[in-house]
This record gives sequence, structure tokens and C-alpha cells, in this order.
Amino acid sequence: MYDIGRSKRAQRAYSLDDIAIVPSRRTRGMDQVNLTWRIDAVEFDFPIIAAPMDSIMSPKTAIEVGRLGGLGVLNLEGLWTRYEDPEPVLEEITAITDAVEATRRMQQVYSEPIKAELITERMREIREAGVPVAGALSPQNTQEFASVVEQAGVDFFVIRGTTVSAEHVSGIAEPLNLKRFIYDLEVPVIVGGCASYQMALHLMRAGAAGVLVGFGGGAARSTQRVLGIAVPMASALADVAEARRDYMDESGGRYVHVIADGSMGRSGDIAKAIACGADAVMVGSPLARAVEAPGRGWHWGAEAWHETLPRGQRVHFDPVGTLREVLVGPSHVPDGTMNLVGGLRRALASTGYSEVKEFQRIELVILD
Amino acid sequence: MYDIGRSKRAQRAYSLDDIAIVPSRRTRGMDQVNLTWRIDAVEFDFPIIAAPMDSIMSPKTAIEVGRLGGLGVLNLEGLWTRYEDPEPVLEEITAITDAVEATRRMQQVYSEPIKAELITERMREIREAGVPVAGALSPQNTQEFASVVEQAGVDFFVIRGTTVSAEHVSGIAEPLNLKRFIYDLEVPVIVGGCASYQMALHLMRAGAAGVLVGFGGGAARSTQRVLGIAVPMASALADVAEARRDYMDESGGRYVHVIADGSMGRSGDIAKAIACGADAVMVGSPLARAVEAPGRGWHWGAEAWHETLPRGQRVHFDPVGTLREVLVGPSHVPDGTMNLVGGLRRALASTGYSEVKEFQRIELVILD
Amino acid sequence: MYDIGRSKRAQRAYSLDDIAIVPSRRTRGMDQVNLTWRIDAVEFDFPIIAAPMDSIMSPKTAIEVGRLGGLGVLNLEGLWTRYEDPEPVLEEITAITDAVEATRRMQQVYSEPIKAELITERMREIREAGVPVAGALSPQNTQEFASVVEQAGVDFFVIRGTTVSAEHVSGIAEPLNLKRFIYDLEVPVIVGGCASYQMALHLMRAGAAGVLVGFGGGAARSTQRVLGIAVPMASALADVAEARRDYMDESGGRYVHVIADGSMGRSGDIAKAIACGADAVMVGSPLARAVEAPGRGWHWGAEAWHETLPRGQRVHFDPVGTLREVLVGPSHVPDGTMNLVGGLRRALASTGYSEVKEFQRIELVILD
Amino acid sequence: MYDIGRSKRAQRAYSLDDIAIVPSRRTRGMDQVNLTWRIDAVEFDFPIIAAPMDSIMSPKTAIEVGRLGGLGVLNLEGLWTRYEDPEPVLEEITAITDAVEATRRMQQVYSEPIKAELITERMREIREAGVPVAGALSPQNTQEFASVVEQAGVDFFVIRGTTVSAEHVSGIAEPLNLKRFIYDLEVPVIVGGCASYQMALHLMRAGAAGVLVGFGGGAARSTQRVLGIAVPMASALADVAEARRDYMDESGGRYVHVIADGSMGRSGDIAKAIACGADAVMVGSPLARAVEAPGRGWHWGAEAWHETLPRGQRVHFDPVGTLREVLVGPSHVPDGTMNLVGGLRRALASTGYSEVKEFQRIELVILD
Repeated sequence: MYDIGRSKRAQRAYSLDDIAIVPSRRTRGMDQVNLTWRIDAVEFDFPIIAAPMDSIMSPKTAIEVGRLGGLGVLNLEGLWTRYEDPEPVLEEITAITDAVEATRRMQQVYSEPIKAELITERMREIREAGVPVAGALSPQNTQEFASVVEQAGVDFFVIRGTTVSAEHVSGIAEPLNLKRFIYDLEVPVIVGGCASYQMALHLMRAGAAGVLVGFGGGAARSTQRVLGIAVPMASALADVAEARRDYMDESGGRYVHVIADGSMGRSGDIAKAIACGADAVMVGSPLARAVEAPGRGWHWGAEAWHETLPRGQRVHFDPVGTLREVLVGPSHVPDGTMNLVGGLRRALASTGYSEVKEFQRIELVILD
Repeated sequence: MYDIGRSKRAQRAYSLDDIAIVPSRRTRGMDQVNLTWRIDAVEFDFPIIAAPMDSIMSPKTAIEVGRLGGLGVLNLEGLWTRYEDPEPVLEEITAITDAVEATRRMQQVYSEPIKAELITERMREIREAGVPVAGALSPQNTQEFASVVEQAGVDFFVIRGTTVSAEHVSGIAEPLNLKRFIYDLEVPVIVGGCASYQMALHLMRAGAAGVLVGFGGGAARSTQRVLGIAVPMASALADVAEARRDYMDESGGRYVHVIADGSMGRSGDIAKAIACGADAVMVGSPLARAVEAPGRGWHWGAEAWHETLPRGQRVHFDPVGTLREVLVGPSHVPDGTMNLVGGLRRALASTGYSEVKEFQRIELVILD
Repeated sequence: MYDIGRSKRAQRAYSLDDIAIVPSRRTRGMDQVNLTWRIDAVEFDFPIIAAPMDSIMSPKTAIEVGRLGGLGVLNLEGLWTRYEDPEPVLEEITAITDAVEATRRMQQVYSEPIKAELITERMREIREAGVPVAGALSPQNTQEFASVVEQAGVDFFVIRGTTVSAEHVSGIAEPLNLKRFIYDLEVPVIVGGCASYQMALHLMRAGAAGVLVGFGGGAARSTQRVLGIAVPMASALADVAEARRDYMDESGGRYVHVIADGSMGRSGDIAKAIACGADAVMVGSPLARAVEAPGRGWHWGAEAWHETLPRGQRVHFDPVGTLREVLVGPSHVPDGTMNLVGGLRRALASTGYSEVKEFQRIELVILD
Repeated sequence: MYDIGRSKRAQRAYSLDDIAIVPSRRTRGMDQVNLTWRIDAVEFDFPIIAAPMDSIMSPKTAIEVGRLGGLGVLNLEGLWTRYEDPEPVLEEITAITDAVEATRRMQQVYSEPIKAELITERMREIREAGVPVAGALSPQNTQEFASVVEQAGVDFFVIRGTTVSAEHVSGIAEPLNLKRFIYDLEVPVIVGGCASYQMALHLMRAGAAGVLVGFGGGAARSTQRVLGIAVPMASALADVAEARRDYMDESGGRYVHVIADGSMGRSGDIAKAIACGADAVMVGSPLARAVEAPGRGWHWGAEAWHETLPRGQRVHFDPVGTLREVLVGPSHVPDGTMNLVGGLRRALASTGYSEVKEFQRIELVILD
């Protein structure tokens, strides 16, 4: 603890940029590295989840991510469940280059109501492709649409908000009782953002299969400007990983997955997140660079079109290759934005680890 | 304490950029957050004061801030009390784009004497609009014009200088005896800049209703270049908040308000300032972005036209919206410069707090 | 050790930019400084090795470095051993300015197989010039071509990879048994990159005459982006220098040379590396600035053309002078990129040291 | 002390940019501040010395600095003692804009020998103007020209080099025996750069009236690139100030002045240097901004034309006003580059100090 001043003390907190992995004793061939990630009854080839954001996940790209061996999550309160055919809307809003005009127009197009039947339809489309199905709602919309989602048939139910606590106080609506909700639901629930040991422990006790660690996703810088809140990812993961261990002890062995969400634009960030204690990562911006991305190079989160307090500025990326190349390579750029899986595999090989779970123990340094 | 070298030790001090708020356990609906701020007999809808600077506060904009629920303070030694009609002067100096020429011309127009009758007139105009009235003088001019201000009728008397101590040594003029002055005055006095525990305690003992924490307002970077002096805001607030507590104890319960003054360009900064111990904030630059701002996008403080040692470079901002949008929204930019009140409200909601006073206890981290 | 979070602690680690040399008591004339470096049976005028990279080392430039008093190492799996006449290939790939296109083309030209007879031919050419001969292979190719290299006649055998451990686990190929390999070889082996005390100790125990400290050479920034791995050089050298001391004790006096490899673009960096414990340095980018450099201003490492995960972006430098001027001056630029030897000599003179070995004890400061 | 790695520990060191002055309890009127500086038998109006650099000091500008109340030091191995009329040379080299060409041409024009009779002539010119006379030599040239300087009649003899120790080892020339030299000389000697407690103590014991603290003057960044050496000024001053105290004790009361030399481009830096323990400062770059500066906006030190290892890149500044305005105002720019004396005076006033000597005790903070 450090003194900020006479009446306030604080810990130092570290982002992924503040730390680095250190090669230690052993090295290992790429063939000796196993990236398999198993959560609940499903096994994935690698521990990377595509974030439920309209700029990257459509039914089509979610299916492609599943076929490549990962998990694509569809945003169930985005354009795909508000519009029968969202392509013209995407075409229009991604053609706007002025930031203020884009914000205003997004505020408009997202005011179209969510349609239950479109939720059913989109989930069905993904399920029929034979890949794991996952859809995401915000805590605000979870109660209204949860049964629709459940009946549509999903493998994972994702509740994703800027910040999600197990204890929400509200005077208007009856707040979501997470514990009862998860208990009643037939499918495993992944829930977040959470940002501290205490919050994570509450979510684990509420029955989450996985907790998302982060706050505001890729909009971290904007969130700090608007709210003063920041969640340096390396420290948050190291805290939540401790909650995982403590909860496993108190629950008699239930293992809740820790999933880093946000701030991971390059394969090196993914490796660092796991080194800090994550079991898997949820990524956004690297997939916005894929040529198939619905956002046509633009990338935005739900905060970007908030009606009174927009945050998380829409950003633009130049496409680098196909979704396949971005996820599993081959890469032809040397900056960690392509072949995310290959980068992670090599990080383990270079430091002599063969499993993601073991790699959580790798030595780190703080860069001065 | 750290060694600078063998003969000098120093504390580390933190600016608002060096720290961040951490969401902890609970969340809360926006409707459950109460931002009311009560000082002396007056209650405001939110704890934001508009700084007494010619570039943002005219009688008209001070009235508008009051109507929106905050407190606008008029600079009583600025253009509005030197000129019967300052609009042509504002028009002229804001049309000059060259920095050196602007400094020279400001040095000239501000040499026009302050007129007592204009003080009376400007205060009357604001009072008749039915909003709280506040005017500011520098310590140098306080004795000469204080009785005029008092008779004009104000709710708050603000004494604002680069640095104000309760103990000023001068060989030329009889220095202001703050303690006697405040004792004699009928209205509550808000006084600053102060920058340390000791200085704040002196001002509290002198009878201040509120102390302004800061040094040189928005001109912080310039002040450091010219004088070598800097007051990292987070640390200064945490120190002065301790003086508030100690003085409350020694005075048998008198609560002096701590008001952060300067370095707060975004709603996130306001949330951080309160998290460090402030009861309220005095802002300048965000209001210079309002379309109604008298400075027409330019923003400057009294130091900018000092005759021998100008500091605090005049800066330019692009307008983002109306004064109402800047203060209470809605916002259409995602960077924290609009809807300051909404940003603060959401910061409390996201961390589960319902009152500004409680929010002073929120956990912080130091960003590495 | 610092807490990253509840479940993870880490050391701070320092790059050469984070530290500086402090002049202490004495000064010394330039004539009183002796930069001679002796490793195994060979003595060099200064402790600078040219890195085995196609962009800087051809047989011709390796000979020139040797004549100037240093050691030039030829890359034995680069263009000079894949093509009878690599000049047209160099001409072509250095004419490509687009980064992605250059990566793709390099991936192609480097797919041409390595030819044993060209290894023999290149080594012979250097040997006949009467300068020390050194060739480098990666760990992957060492077993296949080692006997060719040995028979070609070299003074030093360099095994250089991104990271080299004494314990490599592989399921495909029988991994290189470094200890036996070095024992069987008639020539001294310099091996790396290694990045930690433990790894260095293993390499020393395997019989290395010198260990290269670093990871990915000049591609450090790229490596961190792609793999999350970083080896802050100052800390790595100070760790490996301790391994040298401990190994000297356990081996009864065998002195293994510590050679900094990467991150040294200026003469000041070379001085700092030695101050951290290095006996010598292996440099790349400063030599890419020589007018004779085969890369024609472009500089790249083996990672740059990796077929599935390229790293270490090709960079461009403007030529500053001849190889002689870059190494031993005179300089006509004041930025440390020319007269590397002169810069090192003056660093010792200014701090009163006469020998490289003693200079390892100079006092350092960490820059805040 | 912090671990760089297992075999190396280091202190953190702070530059003037890393620290700031904190206003504490009292304030004071500008009229209550006394900046008088007395060294040996001479009293100056303010503790600012103009550095012996050709780009700022000619006989004419040295006289002007003296008339304004400070001390101007002429470089006795610069153009004014190599050329009868250096103006055409200055005209020519300041007309060259290309950096490399300028370095080459400076290497040529400075190869013209120093002429003893010109030393005599230049000193005479300054003396006849009725201001204090000071000339500077490097340690290399001190023995050859010292008697000429002494006979020419100076108030202060300055020996200024990149680094000057009381113990210099050389095999070619008989090194300067500083102790004997100073003892034999009739005039007070100011000597440096020195950078540590130990070096300063040696120079004080050798009889120096003042020690210059710094290394390479304004060329600090370049020095670090070329030599790896850096002297963070705040820490160096705090160390040397302790040597002043210890030497005063061991010598039975001899007070040696500590003079910060380099890294002070703004009045705020001057205030910070004194706050760290300096009695006076030697400045260069601020004076290069004066319209009278011989360098016509260009600024360079002796290292810039070193024949084999140039350092300290020539830099260009836009003129801001007359030498008088730069030193004693009035200023019309708000960045600390004009009215250096006014800035220092106000720094003392704002923190309640009346004397430079007392101001050395002001509280500092380290900026995070």
C-alpha cells in the first residue's frame, strides 16, 4: 500500500503493458503444446472467445469461429436481434466517418426494439451449423429475454455488462437475482465484467461457470475519462484467480473459469493474461481486423451508443487477413495481430510449458 | 519518503491521471444515486462550481449554471467589472490567434480599472434571476472591494488566488487579515488555492466555509515551468481531507468543505477528485467547450495577462454542445467532456454508492 | 518483489534505457583505457561482435569487422549459404518497401534449402583473409550442419536462437543434447539467447565458452507483442553475471563470457551493458547503418520471415558512414551511432576505469 | 537501493522534471524576496551565471549580463580567442542548417589555435566595462593558458569540462594537479562538472570556491546516448549539497558554492535546482533565445565539435526577446523562458521564503 496523501492509501495496479513473461529454464517443441480448453461439457481447441459485439460477431462469423475451434458469442441485443436484415444498417453506419455523427446515428438505429423471435432464429442458425452456441445479454435485459434464449437452445448463456455485481440495488426495477436466475437456468452461465476479488467471489457463489474480468471491454481508456474507473487487467486477473482458488476451497472443488475480457489486442496480451491467471480470454479488436468482420473495419461496443452518456469511441482498423488467419494463421505481419493461437502456442513452447493451466504459474516481471 | 539524494527526501505525489477508481462489490441503479450538495444554507443539485474566469462566466452563463442546479461564480476583477459592455472586448481578444499578440493585448485590456458600481450591477443581475449569487476577488483586491460585494448581496464570497495562505508577509501593503476579514463578513467565504495539509488547516481556522485545493487552476503545467511549483491534485486532496477531519475534531464539529480547483477536464476527473476526498469541484475548461461560453472557445485565467510574468497559456477548445449538455447531458461524445453530472452519477452507480460523501471512501488504485 | 495482485508477485526489471552510469571519483586519459577482450585463445581489440544477420554480415563485411579488431559472425542459414550468389536476392528484397509484401517475399526466398558446400566455401573465404572465423546456426539446424562447420574450420561456433535452453522437450525430433554436442566439438561454442540466471547456469554447465543474453535480438518490441515475452536487458545481464560467478565457483574457476545480444543501438547502450556485467556485446542495428551493409539500410532477423508467425519487423536506417567509421570512428553525428569503440573508451575514461572487466563494477542509477 | 538483478543494485535518481516544489504554509510579497548572491568578494543581484558557450557569450553579451546583475563567463577556448574577428565565422556556421554539415564545419573552424593575446584582449574588454570578469578553460588547456588568464585580470577562473575529477590519470601529459593549481592561483576557482558526493568533496578539498554540478551541460540526452552516462540533476544536487555541509564541517567553516550546470531551460527549473540545494545556477539555452545571442538562435557546446566523438547536438531556438527580457523581464510568454529572475522571485514569494539560502529547505515532492 502506498500513501496517496494523509487520508488515502492505495495499491499499485498493473495493466498487461506493464508486465512481461520471462523465459525461465526449459524450452519445448510447438508440437508438445496443448491449448485445449474445456469448460462445462464442451471442449475447445484453444481458449479464445469472440466477444459479443456487432462489429465482429454475426451468425456467420460466430459459426466460423466455432469451426476454427473457438467460441463465438452473439450479442442478443444488437442489430441481429433488432433487425430482420441488419446488413443495410451495418452498411450505413460503417460508412459514416465523422465520430459525432456516427454516435448520433448509432443512438438512433439501436433504439429499434429487440425481437424475441429474432433471438430464436439467430441461435437456431448457429446451432444448425454444428458448433457450440452462445448468446449474450446485458443484466438489464436478462430477465426479459432469458427464457427465449434458453428455449432457443444454447450451450452457454453470457451475461455481460460494463460492471456486474451479485448485489445490485435499484428503486425502479426488481433487480436480477443472479443466484436464483443461474440456479433455475439449465445452461452454464458466464457473467461479468467483474474487477475485484470480492465481486468475483460473489459471482462464483451465485453459480457462474465462468466470470469475465474487465470493465468496459475495449473502451477502457474512454471509461476512465468518463467515469474515472479503470481496471488494470494484470492486477484484476491476479486478484480474481485468487478468488477462484478460495472459492474452490469453500465450495469443495467447484472450478470457476476466469476469462479476461478486454485490453487484448495482440497475441502477446493473450499470453500475458493467461500468465496472470486467466483460463481463457474474450477478444474483440483483433477480430475486427478480419476481412469478414461485420463492422467493415469499424469496431464498437454497446457503450458507444448509450443515449445520454456514450463511451467507448468507435475505432477503425485496417483489415489484415481472413478470420482464419487472424485466429490460427499463418500470419504475414510481425505485430501479434494475426495467428493469435500460434502466438500463444509459441509463448508456451518458448518457456517450456505444455498446458494452459500450468502456464498460469510462469514467472512475470514488472517493466519499469 | 524517498531519497532524492543525500540531503533531501520527498514524498511521492499523485495527479488524478495517476490514479483510478476500482469497482468493488455492489452496483446501484442511476435512480438510487443522490448528488445533492449542501454548503451553508444553500443546496445544489450537484457538487459542481463554475470557476470565476472570464472565458466561461458572464452574468448570463452564471445564471444558467444556477438554473441547471450548480453554482456559477463571477470573476469580480475581470472584464465584466472593468467595462460597462465587455462584449466588444471579448470579441476582439478572442479573435487574436497569435499567442504572443494575445498575451500583449490582454495585458492592455485588463489594465482598465475595476469599477465598484459594475460589481454591484453584475451581482444584482444574477440575484434577480433567482439563483445563488457568488463573486470572486483575488487576495490583493479583497480589502478594497469586499464591502461593495457584501452590500451588493451575495450568497458566497470567493477569494481565489494562485496560492492563498492565512499568513502573508508583505512590506508594501497591509496584508489581508483573513481571520478578522471572514469574522467580520456576513456571508460564507470560500478561499484558496491551498495545496497542503498545513495551509488548509490555517484557512479552516481562519473561518473559511470552503477551501479551494489547487494551484494556478488549469495553468498547472505552465506554473510548473515558470515557478517549479506543482500540486498533484490527488495527493493534495487526500492531504486536505485529513485537515478537514482534524479541524472538525479541534473545532468541535465545524465541517469545512474541500473543493478541488483545477486539473479536471473530464467527468472521470471529477469522480476521482471526490474519491480523493473532495466535497465538490470547481471546473473551468469543460465549460469553455459550451457554445454559450463568453471566451468563444478560448480559455484563460488571470495569470495569462500578468504584466511581467504571464503564465497559464490561453488554450482553445472546439465547442461540443450547450452549457446544459456539458453539465447535465445528454452527451454525444464518448470522452467525458459532456454530461459531467451524468458521468459522476454513473461512477457512483457502478461502484454501488448513493451519496457523494460516502463515495469519498471508495477504493483507489495507483496506475503503474 | 511486488504484488501484481493477490495471486501473483513479480520483480521489477530494467532495460538499458531505465538505467545510467554515474561518474564517481576519478577520471582517466583515453590513452589509459584498454578495451582488449580475450575469449578462449583469441584476443580482440574491442569487445564487440557483429551479429549473424544477413542484413549486416556477408563474408566481406565479416572480414572487415575482423580487420578492424572485432569479431564478425556469419549467419550459416541465411542467404549466403542458400544461394551461390545472394547479391541479386538481396538487391530484390531490399528494393521492396511495403512491409507485408517484403515479409511474403522473404518467406519465399528463405525457403531455398541450405547447402553444405556453401557453408564450407563461405568459412574458407573468411579464414583466408586471416581474421578470426565464426559461423552461427540455430538450435534446429545445429545437428545437421555442425560437422560441416567444424570441418570448414572455425574459431567460434555460435548457436543462436530466440531462446535456447539446455533442456529442450520435443516429440518430433531428437532434441540437441547441448552438453554432449559441446563436449564433442573441437571449437569453443557461444550459445544463446538466454534470459535468466537459471538458463544461463544450465548453458554454462553444458560447456559454453560464452552465453548470449537476450531474446529475439533487435526484435524485442515485436516479441513482446507477439509472445508477451520480454527480457529487460539490464536486469537479465545482472542476473546472468551472477550465474557466471556462481558457475566459476562450482566449476573450480572456469570463466564463461557473458555477451549482451540485442537492444544496443548506440555506444551508450554498449557501455551500460558492460556496466551491468557483460564481457562483450553482440550488435546488429548500428552496423546496418554502415554504407557497406548488405541490407542496403534494411535490417532484419530470422524471425522476420518465419512462415507462420513472423516477428521482428524489418526496419530501415539511413546510412551514416563506413563500417570503419561506425566501429572505430571518427564520428560526425552526436547520437552514439558512430564510433562505438570511441564511445565505450570515453565512458571508461570519464569514470576512471582502465579495463572492461573492472568497468563491470561501476555504479549505476535507475532513472525515475 | 533497488535490485537491477542478482549482481547489481542501484539507487533511483531524479531529474528536475521528476520533482516539484510544494507551497507550504506562508506566502510573501515579491518585495520581501531578496535574491542577492555573494561568492568570494563579489555580490550579484541574482544567482544566475551565463555559461561559457560561444552561442551565448561574447564579450558584449557577457558585459550585458554583468550590467543586469549576473555573471557572464566567456569561453576562453572558443571562437573569440581563436579568431581576431569571429563574427564572420559565427555568421557562416550559423547559416548551415544541415546537422552533419554543421558538425563537420565546426570541427574545422575550431581547429584554429587558441591565441594567448586574444585571451588578454577579451578579458580586458569586459573588465573595462566595469563588470565582474570571468573566463573558462577546459582542464586540458588550463595549464597552458592559466597564467595568461590570471595576468589578464579576472574575478573568477572557471575550469569546466564534461567531467572534472580531482584525480585524473594520464599517461601522455602530466595531469593538472588541481590542488596545487588552485593554491597557486590568486583568483577564486569555480570547477566542474562534477556529479557525485565523492567527486564534489575532492574538488572542495582541492580548494574550489564553487563546484559546477552536471555532466555535459545541455547535451545531457546526447551524453547518455554516446557514453551511457547520465547525471539526473535533482539527485546530483542533493548529493553535492551534502558534500558542502560535510566539507564545511571538516574544513572548520569554509563554504563552497554549489552551482547547478545544465538541464535548466526554464525559470521553474532554476527554482527547483535551488530547492535541491544549489546556491546558484549556470544556464545556457534560455540565453540562446535572446535576440543578442551570438549563436543567432543556434546553441552548441564544446562537445558538438569534438573531432572523433561529437556529442551535444546543436539545437535551434526561436528568439523570444532581449537578453534583459530573458533575464529580468518583463515576459510576454507563459512558458518560463523569459524573466528568469522574476520566475525565481515569485517561486520564493509563493512559498513564503525571503532568501535563496533558506529556499534550499523548501519541501519537494516526487511526481509519479
